[in-house]
Amino acid sequence: MEITPIATLYSDFEARFGTPRQPGLVPAARGEVVMRPPYNDPEALRGLESCSHVWLIFGFDRIDNRDWRPTVRPPRLGGNRRYGVFATRSPFRPNGLGLSLVRLEGLLAPAGRGLAIAAPDIMDGTPVVDIKPYLPAIEAPADAHPPAGFEAPNQALAVIWSEAAAGAAADCDERVRALIEQTVAADPRPAYRQRDPNERYGMRIAGFEVGWRVEDGTARIERLLPAG
Amino acid sequence: MEITPIATLYSDFEARFGTPRQPGLVPAARGEVVMRPPYNDPEALRGLESCSHVWLIFGFDRIDNRDWRPTVRPPRLGGNRRYGVFATRSPFRPNGLGLSLVRLEGLLAPAGRGLAIAAPDIMDGTPVVDIKPYLPAIEAPADAHPPAGFEAPNQALAVIWSEAAAGAAADCDERVRALIEQTVAADPRPAYRQRDPNERYGMRIAGFEVGWRVEDGTARIERLLPAG
Repeated sequence: MEITPIATLYSDFEARFGTPRQPGLVPAARGEVVMRPPYNDPEALRGLESCSHVWLIFGFDRIDNRDWRPTVRPPRLGGNRRYGVFATRSPFRPNGLGLSLVRLEGLLAPAGRGLAIAAPDIMDGTPVVDIKPYLPAIEAPADAHPPAGFEAPNQALAVIWSEAAAGAAADCDERVRALIEQTVAADPRPAYRQRDPNERYGMRIAGFEVGWRVEDGTARIERLLPAG
Repeated sequence: MEITPIATLYSDFEARFGTPRQPGLVPAARGEVVMRPPYNDPEALRGLESCSHVWLIFGFDRIDNRDWRPTVRPPRLGGNRRYGVFATRSPFRPNGLGLSLVRLEGLLAPAGRGLAIAAPDIMDGTPVVDIKPYLPAIEAPADAHPPAGFEAPNQALAVIWSEAAAGAAADCDERVRALIEQTVAADPRPAYRQRDPNERYGMRIAGFEVGWRVEDGTARIERLLPAG
């Protein structure tokens, strides 16, 4: 089956590392779903503005999905347990399709241009292949539970700023400061087993290079520079 | 983007007409998601058995998706209001991808063969391009609402059987009788504006041809024959 992107998603997350692992984890994040021709017809979005949340089906285009393996170790679950790829939301999967439920903030101007969304977990530049309204009456069954092991809440990291980084951040707007802090707090590090405790991490987010490390369970943002 | 079916969905719904318009509408319906090679590896489904509901992303392969139009009139909403195609779950959409949340009944034997599911709204023989676990903690936001106009509950039809049809149904097993009755009750007729009040409807479901009509708001099943 041949499918064609209908839109491009623009977000704060300019690299795989740092992109949140689920929607809503980084509340300060914003995104735009910009329709591609011929889908940029105002009529194609008619009525969507009155809806609170939308499904995005998109392509994990920075991952080679021929690399899929039957099992994965979800990093959010510590990387210690193997699950079948179809029992996870791993991006390393056959067909490389992602599915995210995002809050709709409104429609972009001019009419037909696209959607403004909140808190996506999707990389900047990602091709979107469908947009569908969320239907809570049929898509929120009361008796549902995820695969065993997925119930554990996400462990957020405490975050502090070095003096130098805090000084550089003073020039950013408040949303970007919150975005950076929340992205680090969401703990984008790889699973325990692949982790070097002294590792320094670098992320590219909203036009900045952010350097940080973790000491005694607290993340310290050490460096903040406009990306070159 | 080129995508390849990973599985085939087998269901009771052998024709477009009669296929329910949302999952769960016909509780007696059952389906099997049978993995295609090389995805029929027991490891690829590991852990899924402990999950209550799964997302299926599938292709509306009996519809030519080049026929999409910017707006549609959802039949369930009476066919009187136009919505943008991306504000609906219409199958007549760019890329022709469907998304359904279905209850997982269990894994098929032998291991790796696939999934048994309940109450699908998907046609027999449909190609499935992804299976993902449902994650209620992030996919059931408490403050969600659908596009304006979608809140109306589905109006079920009362169903009676003619003597002849009831006689023929006596030979069916109880699940198939319930399946047929629930499928008619879900009111698969087209929207009001395209409807002839004297129309006789025929559906093909679970190996039967079912003939019915509606009089004074009650559906009467008139005919039940093994499909030729």
